[in-house]
Amino acid sequence: MEIKRPLLLISNDDGYQAKGIRELVEMVSDFGDIIVCAPDDARSGYSCAFSATTPLRLTRRETVNYKLSTVNSVEVWSCNGTPVDCVKMALAELCPRRPDMIIGGINHGDNASVNAHYSGTMGVTLEGCMKYIPSVAFSLCDFRDDADFDPLRPLIREITQRVLQEGLPKGVCLNVNFPKLEESGKSKEEREYKGIKVCRMSYGTWGSEVTKCHHPRGYDYWWMVGHYTNDEPEAEDTDRWALDHGYVAITPTQIDLTAYSAIDLIESWDFGNHL
Amino acid sequence: MEIKRPLLLISNDDGYQAKGIRELVEMVSDFGDIIVCAPDDARSGYSCAFSATTPLRLTRRETVNYKLSTVNSVEVWSCNGTPVDCVKMALAELCPRRPDMIIGGINHGDNASVNAHYSGTMGVTLEGCMKYIPSVAFSLCDFRDDADFDPLRPLIREITQRVLQEGLPKGVCLNVNFPKLEESGKSKEEREYKGIKVCRMSYGTWGSEVTKCHHPRGYDYWWMVGHYTNDEPEAEDTDRWALDHGYVAITPTQIDLTAYSAIDLIESWDFGNHL
Repeated sequence: MEIKRPLLLISNDDGYQAKGIRELVEMVSDFGDIIVCAPDDARSGYSCAFSATTPLRLTRRETVNYKLSTVNSVEVWSCNGTPVDCVKMALAELCPRRPDMIIGGINHGDNASVNAHYSGTMGVTLEGCMKYIPSVAFSLCDFRDDADFDPLRPLIREITQRVLQEGLPKGVCLNVNFPKLEESGKSKEEREYKGIKVCRMSYGTWGSEVTKCHHPRGYDYWWMVGHYTNDEPEAEDTDRWALDHGYVAITPTQIDLTAYSAIDLIESWDFGNHL
Repeated sequence: MEIKRPLLLISNDDGYQAKGIRELVEMVSDFGDIIVCAPDDARSGYSCAFSATTPLRLTRRETVNYKLSTVNSVEVWSCNGTPVDCVKMALAELCPRRPDMIIGGINHGDNASVNAHYSGTMGVTLEGCMKYIPSVAFSLCDFRDDADFDPLRPLIREITQRVLQEGLPKGVCLNVNFPKLEESGKSKEEREYKGIKVCRMSYGTWGSEVTKCHHPRGYDYWWMVGHYTNDEPEAEDTDRWALDHGYVAITPTQIDLTAYSAIDLIESWDFGNHL
């Protein structure tokens, strides 16, 4: 009987050429066979969107520039759709067997707090979770194209190994966010994580979200921008607090959106007269 | 002191011209001033996506074809962005004051079970909830352009009035789905709702999600389609069960995605050696 190596499906929302996804592949490629299926360009803010009306295409990409030292296979594909499209397409058309794990990332920029709702990288991870495949998102609080992902390597490897071995509870995935470490020149303490915190998602609000511009042809248009405010900066059990204080934040995240705490209240609303 | 009428912001993912949103406006326009800001065309499956890289535009639309008998004002705008963009744009540029309520819908097609993650109509509602504005989504299990929304009117009016009066708990919105009633010719029982159930979101899985086609120019492309399977058809406390048995399903839905039940498990994973 042939023993199958684990199969890992990797996607993101920054596109298949982003540094974050390339480094992620290099970090975990010795754990099993890898299939990357990622957007052909940046798709930040795509949430769990899928393409209902766009014909989707797949393009095989070279891995010649990856630093791989593994006997496992690594296949890289790009898709013209959303992050969630990438997962659906890979599961239907690219994966020779059911993946043992789906990983989103490494995202350039954090996906803590309510950003989990907007994030395409979390879209990848929630999509995997909806398929009951153990799924994890990794994100770094650094938007730069050339962000330094090296410090993330040990913990990403350990979490990946752990999830491959033990799985995750049904309907639960992990949203892992890393704070940005200070550059060299700062003290050693500022160049190391303070620790790891298993967190809840914090409440936060985006404001000043649009900037109005004037087109040379005479009409107005707007860019989405925005400023994030932490609505509970003192709450030490939140992902945002952890990141702001130098800790890696692991937020167990679920696909069940039910507000169980509100069921009794809504049941107390008597709508009987309309039936 | 001038007494302000309530302000309701309405959007959807089927586009500003869809029958569902037009009928919704007509159903609730006597409760307050209405601002509609909805996509300029269908945006099904857009989830909480926002447009990070697309310049957004707003277009004022006529209300001459609306059946309105109200002294309140009704303004209709379309936007070239996502459903969430519509909410953000309306809050920033169109609303003269903070809306008292945000409504998504009426969606042509249900948003029960995991569809809540993909739905642009739920995107509208979750976005309102993230802004701490009482928000509700209404959806009908009928995809047809000319679906009959008349039976929904009494309950939509009652829920809207109730939410305007009492609000909703912080971080909680409502996902209200109506079953499709049988056409005339069936028995009277089949043409009436069995009742209302306050539900949890059911687990379900989409499969067979892509269909491969061949372009005349010689390449393959795929359409997203899919077949939904209810993973817990016997669970009488779920939204899917309610709809399948003729009940209106009200699913209290929250923006906090934290899987509290998994925090202890993940904390038991000792990552200390990497810090």
